[in-house]
Amino acid sequence: MKIGAIEAGGTKFVCAIGNEEGQVFEKTVIPTQYPDITMPAVCQFFKGKGIERMGIGSFGPIDVNEQSDSYGTIQETPKTDWVDFPLVQRLTEELAVPVKVDTDVNVAALSEAAWGNATDVDSCLYITVGTGIGAGAMVNGATLKGLSHPEMGHIAIKRHEEDSFDGTCPYHGDCLEGMAAGPALEKRWGKAGKELANDEKVWEIEAYYLAQALVNYIYILSPERIIMGGGVMQQEHLFGLVRNQVVDMLAGYVSSPLLSPEHIDDYIVPPGLTDEAGIKGALLLAANS
Amino acid sequence: MKIGAIEAGGTKFVCAIGNEEGQVFEKTVIPTQYPDITMPAVCQFFKGKGIERMGIGSFGPIDVNEQSDSYGTIQETPKTDWVDFPLVQRLTEELAVPVKVDTDVNVAALSEAAWGNATDVDSCLYITVGTGIGAGAMVNGATLKGLSHPEMGHIAIKRHEEDSFDGTCPYHGDCLEGMAAGPALEKRWGKAGKELANDEKVWEIEAYYLAQALVNYIYILSPERIIMGGGVMQQEHLFGLVRNQVVDMLAGYVSSPLLSPEHIDDYIVPPGLTDEAGIKGALLLAANS
Repeated sequence: MKIGAIEAGGTKFVCAIGNEEGQVFEKTVIPTQYPDITMPAVCQFFKGKGIERMGIGSFGPIDVNEQSDSYGTIQETPKTDWVDFPLVQRLTEELAVPVKVDTDVNVAALSEAAWGNATDVDSCLYITVGTGIGAGAMVNGATLKGLSHPEMGHIAIKRHEEDSFDGTCPYHGDCLEGMAAGPALEKRWGKAGKELANDEKVWEIEAYYLAQALVNYIYILSPERIIMGGGVMQQEHLFGLVRNQVVDMLAGYVSSPLLSPEHIDDYIVPPGLTDEAGIKGALLLAANS
Repeated sequence: MKIGAIEAGGTKFVCAIGNEEGQVFEKTVIPTQYPDITMPAVCQFFKGKGIERMGIGSFGPIDVNEQSDSYGTIQETPKTDWVDFPLVQRLTEELAVPVKVDTDVNVAALSEAAWGNATDVDSCLYITVGTGIGAGAMVNGATLKGLSHPEMGHIAIKRHEEDSFDGTCPYHGDCLEGMAAGPALEKRWGKAGKELANDEKVWEIEAYYLAQALVNYIYILSPERIIMGGGVMQQEHLFGLVRNQVVDMLAGYVSSPLLSPEHIDDYIVPPGLTDEAGIKGALLLAANS
């Protein structure tokens, strides 16, 4: 089956044609501008290609409740041009195929569970640490949704005792995303993360916040594996620091050999699908529907 | 079908005979002492009653992974007499019926979803605030488990600016349970919660901690309803305080009419099954298996 897939992000729409096995035949990248500019280009790419279904992994907040009248409509977001934009409805009308949407991080968890670094477990959490922080999860055979989709990047965290940074989140100030996403790193230290690679204090503090988040996710969701992706996690030494702090913070409280210093490397891992987790997940989302 | 059910707690084992519709025919309460004293009495109650299956909602930590060799074995707990006790194995041997176990709070979520205050939604979270704090959830048609079961009572929270109490958790000190469970209230204020009913500051601080936890659960799990049970929630005025603080802390970030001041009363609710959520959930756990 030919399937259309979109990874809809704040800076670009990655559009692809592929199939239910995650193979990608053709791909293009369209900048995220005003909907009136971006959407015609997106539709143009898919038209006449014989796709039978479409799946989208989208930035949020977006209505992901299939029973809702506003399914697939973008909600309140700092990207004000997109607020209330009916993404699924527009694509359904233009392409005349069934369209499914879930969050970018939920579809990444879906594809990592199918083809990536979580094929051997029944549940996993995928967190991206980049321009923002978001996480999705596979639980009991499906992605995690409910009242809305999770907003795991916005949990409250304890401040590091050597950190007086105010945080960048327009809603919460010093929530996880406000303290540990890429823009927070850059604003706190005056340089982008990749220029700070050798500054130990930068990464000690960063790991302190990310580890707190992971510990909360473990206490609340108990995922069988945690996959960390996104631009900030390109700093590979950060994995070791986060793993160590997670083990320290849990202090042996959760009974699992995977949470020991010997095995934590197999529990907190990078993505198996690198930069294709989103597109492959969108293909699978459409295929499963 | 006749089913045996146990709600296994730190102070008592509630044992019952019932059926898959949640009807309870007979019930007894056996104090939680040493396993060698408690377990023979428990087995005696069930023997010769013609039960075909058994379900247990248990205190934890306990191995709830059905694929594990130690399924149903109690893990590290301050109740040291019970550490490594093979609860499911012992009952299976003695009663010669299939035995299933899940956490007390997961089975409470299961029964509230089937017969209580969450019958009209697809997901819910059940939190008990009593001698300890624990929470379970129904997600995608089953209770929430993974690497282990959740330990939602032990998340980190921010300290209230007027609270200098150290916390009572032997593992984490000032985690949610350490700051907001019944023993924390009693130790901080020198009196049991029910004797403090008219002291506004007590409940303002209590609500601050519980609301933080609920906000984290909403950001991470996005349940369609939150049910609050347990001894501390018998202080009914606490519901209003928690609801108000949850709305304030979310500050409109999650798009849902249920999280507005007008509708939050329908989102954060008391149990529908009052003190029978555990036993009815244990019946259902066995029936579903």
